[in-house]
Amino acid sequence: MSNRFPELLSKVRELKDLDGVLSLMGWDEETYAPRAGRAPRGRHTATLEGLRHERLTSPALGALIEELVAEPSLDDAQRTMVARIKHRRDRAVKVPEALVRAFAEARSLSLAAWGDARKADDYASFRPHLETIVRLSRERADALGGERYDALLDEYEPGMTKARLIPILAELREGLVPLVRAIAAKKAPDRSFLIGPAFDEELQWQLTLRLLGDLGFDLERGRQDRSAHPFTNTVSEHDVRVTTRIFADNPLSAIFSTIHEAGHGMYEQGFDAAHHGTPLADAPSMGIHESQSRLWENQVGRSRAFWSHYLPELRRLFPAQLGGVELDAFYRAVNVVEPGLIRVDADEVTYNLHILLRFELEIALLSGDLVAKDLPGAWNEKMRAYLGVAPPNDADGCMQDIHWAWGAIGYFPTYSLGNAYSAQLMAAFVRETPDAWGAIGRGNLGVLLSWLRGKVHRSGYLHSAEETVRRATGEALSVKPLLEYLKKKYSEVYGL
Amino acid sequence: MSNRFPELLSKVRELKDLDGVLSLMGWDEETYAPRAGRAPRGRHTATLEGLRHERLTSPALGALIEELVAEPSLDDAQRTMVARIKHRRDRAVKVPEALVRAFAEARSLSLAAWGDARKADDYASFRPHLETIVRLSRERADALGGERYDALLDEYEPGMTKARLIPILAELREGLVPLVRAIAAKKAPDRSFLIGPAFDEELQWQLTLRLLGDLGFDLERGRQDRSAHPFTNTVSEHDVRVTTRIFADNPLSAIFSTIHEAGHGMYEQGFDAAHHGTPLADAPSMGIHESQSRLWENQVGRSRAFWSHYLPELRRLFPAQLGGVELDAFYRAVNVVEPGLIRVDADEVTYNLHILLRFELEIALLSGDLVAKDLPGAWNEKMRAYLGVAPPNDADGCMQDIHWAWGAIGYFPTYSLGNAYSAQLMAAFVRETPDAWGAIGRGNLGVLLSWLRGKVHRSGYLHSAEETVRRATGEALSVKPLLEYLKKKYSEVYGL
Repeated sequence: MSNRFPELLSKVRELKDLDGVLSLMGWDEETYAPRAGRAPRGRHTATLEGLRHERLTSPALGALIEELVAEPSLDDAQRTMVARIKHRRDRAVKVPEALVRAFAEARSLSLAAWGDARKADDYASFRPHLETIVRLSRERADALGGERYDALLDEYEPGMTKARLIPILAELREGLVPLVRAIAAKKAPDRSFLIGPAFDEELQWQLTLRLLGDLGFDLERGRQDRSAHPFTNTVSEHDVRVTTRIFADNPLSAIFSTIHEAGHGMYEQGFDAAHHGTPLADAPSMGIHESQSRLWENQVGRSRAFWSHYLPELRRLFPAQLGGVELDAFYRAVNVVEPGLIRVDADEVTYNLHILLRFELEIALLSGDLVAKDLPGAWNEKMRAYLGVAPPNDADGCMQDIHWAWGAIGYFPTYSLGNAYSAQLMAAFVRETPDAWGAIGRGNLGVLLSWLRGKVHRSGYLHSAEETVRRATGEALSVKPLLEYLKKKYSEVYGL
Repeated sequence: MSNRFPELLSKVRELKDLDGVLSLMGWDEETYAPRAGRAPRGRHTATLEGLRHERLTSPALGALIEELVAEPSLDDAQRTMVARIKHRRDRAVKVPEALVRAFAEARSLSLAAWGDARKADDYASFRPHLETIVRLSRERADALGGERYDALLDEYEPGMTKARLIPILAELREGLVPLVRAIAAKKAPDRSFLIGPAFDEELQWQLTLRLLGDLGFDLERGRQDRSAHPFTNTVSEHDVRVTTRIFADNPLSAIFSTIHEAGHGMYEQGFDAAHHGTPLADAPSMGIHESQSRLWENQVGRSRAFWSHYLPELRRLFPAQLGGVELDAFYRAVNVVEPGLIRVDADEVTYNLHILLRFELEIALLSGDLVAKDLPGAWNEKMRAYLGVAPPNDADGCMQDIHWAWGAIGYFPTYSLGNAYSAQLMAAFVRETPDAWGAIGRGNLGVLLSWLRGKVHRSGYLHSAEETVRRATGEALSVKPLLEYLKKKYSEVYGL
């Protein structure tokens, strides 16, 4: 039975190669590239993205896809591969070249302006750029078709809609706001022993490398470096790079960054080898990707069982600071809940409220219900309502995130979906696995990784995000496991 | 006056961007890429090279070039740019796609076989690959047209010919063989104090970074890393990367590697900014590129003046090993001449004899006067004749270099041209500059760099290699300055 499917695979492979090279370039820019090399690097990136866009939108590829959509001899997996690449191409074709270019330029200007405006706490100078981003995002959404917000969201969370997110995030808010209030009324655990100027950076680095290996990140098929903002970039199926950052006065930063990125990295290393080079060797959505990092960072990395194994090691490395710290005190210290201004510093209870606020505001910006001029006021009002804190300035308020400046409207809710999915997956793992927490307490993390490989990683983009989680857990998307987990854990930590 | 020259520049810029990205990928592969990532990296490289080849050979670019060749409104520099890109494209178009692919595959197989064969000292297993490389090189040469060896040489040294190289290299041999014999009859200077297990690697690393800065390599527009084999890769006009290697038991390795690569790197950083992104921001040939690395490494880095400035610093860093070493003893120790088996370890006197041997053998292989079966015998015979040493095996004999295994026939003579050019340039600099050696002895290396910037670097590929040197020195290509320099220096070092 002969068809042109192999030809499609070779074209997809070429696109994946370009993705990988762009990923390497991004990694290099954040790790080793010399300062002055940044501007030419931007040009290199634009050139490669242009080539990739040209290949992806070529009429020849379009015709090949249409032929294969109607090809009866394909099996189910092949049919799915065709659908995935068709989805990617359809989106790329719908946005006119002129708009692609205008958006890229606006992003570039906006990013630069955002950086300066944030430093100077000068929202007025960023505002016109945000207005342009919002305007061009509307044009992009209209070119893509369908409900505006959904059209943008689809880039990050294919298949998800605003209409479904609204009740999900409302349910989260209903559960979280009272929990945060109850916690705020209690005395916070002591974590002073974790804040000091004396945690050797080289020892921290060695610890993070050891953690990577223990978790199951394959250092023969990847590496770790340092960068200002931790990230995971996939260069190829055998080359996945994570980064971490190390602060001498806060060892938890490196530890949790490494665990978080290891979660992303192990997912990228875990796609079925038979799918390498195809559209199936990919995550179905950003939300499910984030579920992997959050699961390892929070569900595992902030558990009592995990630290019953690692605290002795940490005490051995830093005897002066942690020699006298008991497990219970340490566990409580890594689970302090504190409503704060900054999303990336937020604990796992308050985090989703930061997301909710952004989700509501970006919907309002896109629809026009909120204009950029009124963003700071709206931001601060919601911060007070959801978190009970008031930003003293816009730099730590509505300008704290890069996402909107970078043109990524529709991205934020994927973080909360990741949290919800992570709780669903962890609950299912514990349900199905005899002595699951005992294994983790003995440092046997391979049981969990194997379970995730079989339930989530290997299948890659064979199914949608929701279908993947449904198959893994037997449940539809739900925030209930997350709320149950948070209520149970923090009732204990805070004695509610 | 409107013409399509700007369109050509934008196409050239795209090709240069692809060159830069490929250069980054090559750098990464030799420095940080995880082991398992090598195979997919090969695929990435092939994909990008394929895209580049497609752009370069596109009929649209061909038509644009032909139009601009006949365009009367171009100025001289623009005319040169058109000629440069035409030359590159003509060569790319002449070789049929099937041969390009066959050669790429043969190289890949040959490189792997060479690595194994060299390790096992098993020439018989490498021989069929060499035969294929030679056969395909003939086919490539015939596709390119003209004299066979010249067609290949043109890749590395545009405009140079075998007929011109033969008398040049013969003159070198006539001068060098008796010099090597005379030196061999003398007692070698003591260098035992430089060979030991105790030169701290971190101190060596810091020293090389300081040297880079002192020489004038701009670390804001480049960086240094460690790799098994030192090299220089240009990622962009503002991102030039050099590497070095450090051995605890031999500090000269890192020092001279760094100086050598800094020579290449400063050249790449020195093209006229007005030419960035055009075919003029490039070296005219490998020979002239090598002249820059050799000039700094040998003419400067092995001079008495240079060490009169740096020996005190070296003694300060390594007092136990070098505290009692006087300048004269040190100078003689870094200028030991010793006929040996390995080209890359050769001193500046014997080095060119290694090249001569390879030049003669690759011409004979290409013409068929020598068959691969007889290569080891022919190699060993010439080693005895030129250098008076006999390789005990083929691993350290005819299999020591990667060049032929990698398909690079016609590359070797560029090293000797580099040596010749370096001596011509240094002699001219000293002639024109009052107290040139005094400045170097005071650590003022900027005088030399400025001279090279003005005479060689800035003009890039505005002129051919020979024309560049002629303009810089007032002389045609000649090995006389090199021979004079070597005879004078080594007569003194060895008391001939």
